[in-house]
Amino acid sequence: MFELATLLAQITTDYGRMGIGLGIGLIIIGAGLGIGRIGGSAVDAMARQPEAGGRIQTAMIIAAALIEGATVIALVFSLLVS
Amino acid sequence: MFELATLLAQITTDYGRMGIGLGIGLIIIGAGLGIGRIGGSAVDAMARQPEAGGRIQTAMIIAAALIEGATVIALVFSLLVS
Amino acid sequence: MFELATLLAQITTDYGRMGIGLGIGLIIIGAGLGIGRIGGSAVDAMARQPEAGGRIQTAMIIAAALIEGATVIALVFSLLVS
Repeated sequence: MFELATLLAQITTDYGRMGIGLGIGLIIIGAGLGIGRIGGSAVDAMARQPEAGGRIQTAMIIAAALIEGATVIALVFSLLVS
Repeated sequence: MFELATLLAQITTDYGRMGIGLGIGLIIIGAGLGIGRIGGSAVDAMARQPEAGGRIQTAMIIAAALIEGATVIALVFSLLVS
Repeated sequence: MFELATLLAQITTDYGRMGIGLGIGLIIIGAGLGIGRIGGSAVDAMARQPEAGGRIQTAMIIAAALIEGATVIALVFSLLVS
């Protein structure tokens, strides 16, 4: 009976790890979609108005940094939860 | 019977952890889609009307900060729930 | 009975590993979508405004590096979780 309990505890622990692993992947999908959209639109915008390039680049970095910050927090929290 | 209860409690705890992990990933997918959409549209708007760039950037930061705030709260709550 | 326990413990261990493995794949899907979007838009933008090529390349590298940084952190954390 003790062995059964031990091994069932093992089952549950590893379902949790499955979720954490998939969650880390989803985090980067979110970050990639978000920063990718901003960066892609920024270079398109620079090509349309090259003289506004400095301002566009500043806006791109601000928005991308917001996503980057949340992403790193989420990754650290995933590690803490596991 | 006590052992069975203990191990079943363990099962549920770890299904929970699976959900927390997936939830953290979904949080960042939401934040990435949202801030990405705002940032992408903002740089497009700056290219179309460069003289309105300052106002556009302010609006972008306000909207993105609202998503960022909710995201950080959600991440902290995910950690508290686990 | 001991053999059954060993084998079931192995099953559970591998559910966790399955999640980590799929998660690593999702990480690269996210990074590929993001950096791919930025790089693709950057070369399109350069073709439209070749004289703005230097500025566009700078913006592309900044945005792609943000995704790359988060991706490497996520890959290392996946290894730590497993």
